[in-house]
Amino acid sequence: MKQSRRPVKKNHYNVGAPLAPWREALNVIIFGAETRAAKIFDVVLSIMIICSVLAVMLGSVNSLQERYTQWFFYSEWFFTLLFSVEYVLRLLSVRKPWLYCRSFFGIVDFLSIIPTYLSFLMPDIKYMLIARVLRLLRVFRILKLAEYMGEAQVLMYALSRSRQKILVFLYTVCTLVIVFGSLMYVVEGSESGFTSIPKSVYWAIVTLTTVGYGDIAPQTPLGQMIASSIMIMGYGIIAVPTGIYSAELMKVDKAADINNEACPDCGETGHDYDASYCKYCGHSLDA
Amino acid sequence: MKQSRRPVKKNHYNVGAPLAPWREALNVIIFGAETRAAKIFDVVLSIMIICSVLAVMLGSVNSLQERYTQWFFYSEWFFTLLFSVEYVLRLLSVRKPWLYCRSFFGIVDFLSIIPTYLSFLMPDIKYMLIARVLRLLRVFRILKLAEYMGEAQVLMYALSRSRQKILVFLYTVCTLVIVFGSLMYVVEGSESGFTSIPKSVYWAIVTLTTVGYGDIAPQTPLGQMIASSIMIMGYGIIAVPTGIYSAELMKVDKAADINNEACPDCGETGHDYDASYCKYCGHSLDA
Amino acid sequence: MKQSRRPVKKNHYNVGAPLAPWREALNVIIFGAETRAAKIFDVVLSIMIICSVLAVMLGSVNSLQERYTQWFFYSEWFFTLLFSVEYVLRLLSVRKPWLYCRSFFGIVDFLSIIPTYLSFLMPDIKYMLIARVLRLLRVFRILKLAEYMGEAQVLMYALSRSRQKILVFLYTVCTLVIVFGSLMYVVEGSESGFTSIPKSVYWAIVTLTTVGYGDIAPQTPLGQMIASSIMIMGYGIIAVPTGIYSAELMKVDKAADINNEACPDCGETGHDYDASYCKYCGHSLDA
Amino acid sequence: MKQSRRPVKKNHYNVGAPLAPWREALNVIIFGAETRAAKIFDVVLSIMIICSVLAVMLGSVNSLQERYTQWFFYSEWFFTLLFSVEYVLRLLSVRKPWLYCRSFFGIVDFLSIIPTYLSFLMPDIKYMLIARVLRLLRVFRILKLAEYMGEAQVLMYALSRSRQKILVFLYTVCTLVIVFGSLMYVVEGSESGFTSIPKSVYWAIVTLTTVGYGDIAPQTPLGQMIASSIMIMGYGIIAVPTGIYSAELMKVDKAADINNEACPDCGETGHDYDASYCKYCGHSLDA
Repeated sequence: MKQSRRPVKKNHYNVGAPLAPWREALNVIIFGAETRAAKIFDVVLSIMIICSVLAVMLGSVNSLQERYTQWFFYSEWFFTLLFSVEYVLRLLSVRKPWLYCRSFFGIVDFLSIIPTYLSFLMPDIKYMLIARVLRLLRVFRILKLAEYMGEAQVLMYALSRSRQKILVFLYTVCTLVIVFGSLMYVVEGSESGFTSIPKSVYWAIVTLTTVGYGDIAPQTPLGQMIASSIMIMGYGIIAVPTGIYSAELMKVDKAADINNEACPDCGETGHDYDASYCKYCGHSLDA
Repeated sequence: MKQSRRPVKKNHYNVGAPLAPWREALNVIIFGAETRAAKIFDVVLSIMIICSVLAVMLGSVNSLQERYTQWFFYSEWFFTLLFSVEYVLRLLSVRKPWLYCRSFFGIVDFLSIIPTYLSFLMPDIKYMLIARVLRLLRVFRILKLAEYMGEAQVLMYALSRSRQKILVFLYTVCTLVIVFGSLMYVVEGSESGFTSIPKSVYWAIVTLTTVGYGDIAPQTPLGQMIASSIMIMGYGIIAVPTGIYSAELMKVDKAADINNEACPDCGETGHDYDASYCKYCGHSLDA
Repeated sequence: MKQSRRPVKKNHYNVGAPLAPWREALNVIIFGAETRAAKIFDVVLSIMIICSVLAVMLGSVNSLQERYTQWFFYSEWFFTLLFSVEYVLRLLSVRKPWLYCRSFFGIVDFLSIIPTYLSFLMPDIKYMLIARVLRLLRVFRILKLAEYMGEAQVLMYALSRSRQKILVFLYTVCTLVIVFGSLMYVVEGSESGFTSIPKSVYWAIVTLTTVGYGDIAPQTPLGQMIASSIMIMGYGIIAVPTGIYSAELMKVDKAADINNEACPDCGETGHDYDASYCKYCGHSLDA
Repeated sequence: MKQSRRPVKKNHYNVGAPLAPWREALNVIIFGAETRAAKIFDVVLSIMIICSVLAVMLGSVNSLQERYTQWFFYSEWFFTLLFSVEYVLRLLSVRKPWLYCRSFFGIVDFLSIIPTYLSFLMPDIKYMLIARVLRLLRVFRILKLAEYMGEAQVLMYALSRSRQKILVFLYTVCTLVIVFGSLMYVVEGSESGFTSIPKSVYWAIVTLTTVGYGDIAPQTPLGQMIASSIMIMGYGIIAVPTGIYSAELMKVDKAADINNEACPDCGETGHDYDASYCKYCGHSLDA
């Protein structure tokens, strides 16, 4: 509700002098989200993206690939040509094509078609088609755009505000895993799988993050004692990012919730958004 | 305390014109929770449900099944017939039987008896009897109903208010596991168990959520580096839903703390505790 | 600081008519924590408890047991006799011996000596001696008692206030693991290790809590899809107890931090504990 | 922003009478961070530290060690001699060399060079060179020093304020794993890998912290039931440190939000933003 009041910001590459009428019309369909045609375009595009991602994923399963080789080959080219046409139309209808190409979604759109063309040279590269899944981010707008984007912005804003704290935390975690990894390399030796310091550091990350594959596990009593202390440390350390993020999110939430307009009579602020009268002096807030 | 003041809301299927006296009496026993008979009914029903769930669970253990085949067969039919009678009585005593059938508990009750009848056709379906455990949700009322239901409502309310944030979060997690899963498929190849993209995505979920079975684990140095970054990411990402939910729960809690005294002039409630004037009509709250 | 003002509550079994002088003196040493003798007693007892726990733990290691059989046998009897004497002295010096026997620490003390005597009948029972570690709880007082106990009380108070919410949460978790465990039993079958519903429920708990041993892991694509959804669910569900506890702890903390005494002039409350003057009207708060 | 106002505190070993001019100049370059020369020194030193840590890590990989033995040998001595020269220069330019030697960074610097010299006596000790990674902590200042250090101080301050609560929590965790570990030793026995109480305690830590390697896993139904309860406990217990830390961080954050304007009469700061009168002396804050 609160977010929907906020007007949807136009992308920088879509600001500028108007284009020829047919390109304007295309622009409204492809980049817009309000008209009926634009909504249908978004829904069809979403389905196409999901289908193409599923085709790439299933195409990597050997048993399916062997049985439906032809089918996967055709679907790959079908989606690639379809998205190529869409990419060209986007370039034609956007106001500043070059800015669009360099934008996040421009790059994602490009990565969604180019691997197929390059797969003649390098067959493995075609799995980069999975980048198509990122295109779905754009189609968030077919859901209630403003609200979801608003929520995502709150989450990102809280994240960016706690950036420094999180970097300090990540540096501490990195130092811990390097120091403890090396220690375990010396203590355990290669018999238990700690064959080198990089591998031991990998093990320390697996342990500290409480993932615990178990492909490498300490065997000696001393190694198990050190491992235990890493685990309990990791168990406690998880409190740090959670605490940082909770605290930040609560501040952001609170700031978004309180009306900062002052009462015209007593000058007090901090009124709720639904308040019509000052809660301190009773003066009308609307005048 | 606060919750117990709130009157227990009647279910929509139990509102309407009174029934014949014996059906009214049955209604009070089966759907009510205040009278002595209703309480005994609830306690006996709870015990029956727990026993029937235990019977289904133990009946799936081979060694027990072989020794007590007869016993499990009879118990299954005993509980099924018992719950069938109960289901019929519920239909007879409820005011709007058809609405009841389509309600959550109506469906659960139906699923608690039908698999046994269908098990002549499909033997495996009888394990759906485990749905009986959901019936216990109804019997929460034999504990201090209002309080527990009140707490559950607070938890659900906070969950539903953070719905949008959680959907944004889930979408991000899905995108991450698809992108990283595909990357690992290309990097690791089938020797380490990454035989297809869907399987690699499964591995990425196992890793990001810090479950870490270890049935599939990266073997190459590059794969282990990518895996390490997924783990640290997953370790940090867990802060997001926790932060969202903590912040929301705190707001809901605070809202419950708000002054429920109505304005003497306009009758509106929901004023802060430090408010001297009604924020809706400006009338003094103190008088 | 705040906690230390609070007088240390006397245990209910130590209230009553005074005893004979020598038993009073013993009481001060054994149950007290202020005198020099009481402090020495506590330190010596702590060391004895730690040594006895270590002896039981190391005595279970086969290689050590074989080499030092005699040593472990003597140490076990040494500590048992020592703690028996202490137990008798406690009974003699306490004001209400029977109440003490039934108190938490009375039972722990009893469990710390009885297994050795019973080990002639059942050899395995001697490992119950590990209950001695609980005795250390009492010796918290040799550290700055009041402060630590105060903190522990805050933690316990927040826990007991969120009891209902946590029970609702636990019931939800139990229902989820039973339903999903049964589903996996039907989907996966015994080849992947899901040999019975109880075992599948065990697997569901291992997965939902993100422990993930990997001794049982789904092999079929459908099973892995269900497992993925359980993991993501578990990853999100962990937010619930954390949110509940954080919110409760913050409320308890806040309540402990704010002075509820009203200003004698304007009647406003909510002053900090270090405030000497009302922050709203400037009147002295001390008068 | 808020943090950057705070002047960078001089280290205690760098306070005192001025030294000879060339040593003063050296001091500014080595211990300072404002001049151009000092910044270049910090950047070069950071790169050297990262390279030396990478060299030690890669030198532990067998395949690389075999191929580039010479290269690793020379790089080890190159970095050691380089850091030795730096260490001597630090001693020469610091005001109180002995205090510096005993400071945290003095010890880290010493540990960064001594293992190479000792490796003639004990070859394994050279992996202690990994301690060099801790030197990077000092070079935080080449990033925006004050801000990051400020954030780190907030995190540490919140940690130190919740110290007592965390110790109580750790003691509870230790008690739980010892009691449950011993229980599992008795229940499971050596066939499932629970060969001794210390090993069972190790398993309990692996399980409670949700790491779950799977190298030891319960096999008996009773053991799996106990393990399930430990897991659910561990899943809930993780809420405790997170709650503690979140609550503390929020209080510290709020304290940082407090009005730093001093009272015009008594000069005290730390008033709430809504305070109109000094809470210490009662003087008006607005005038």
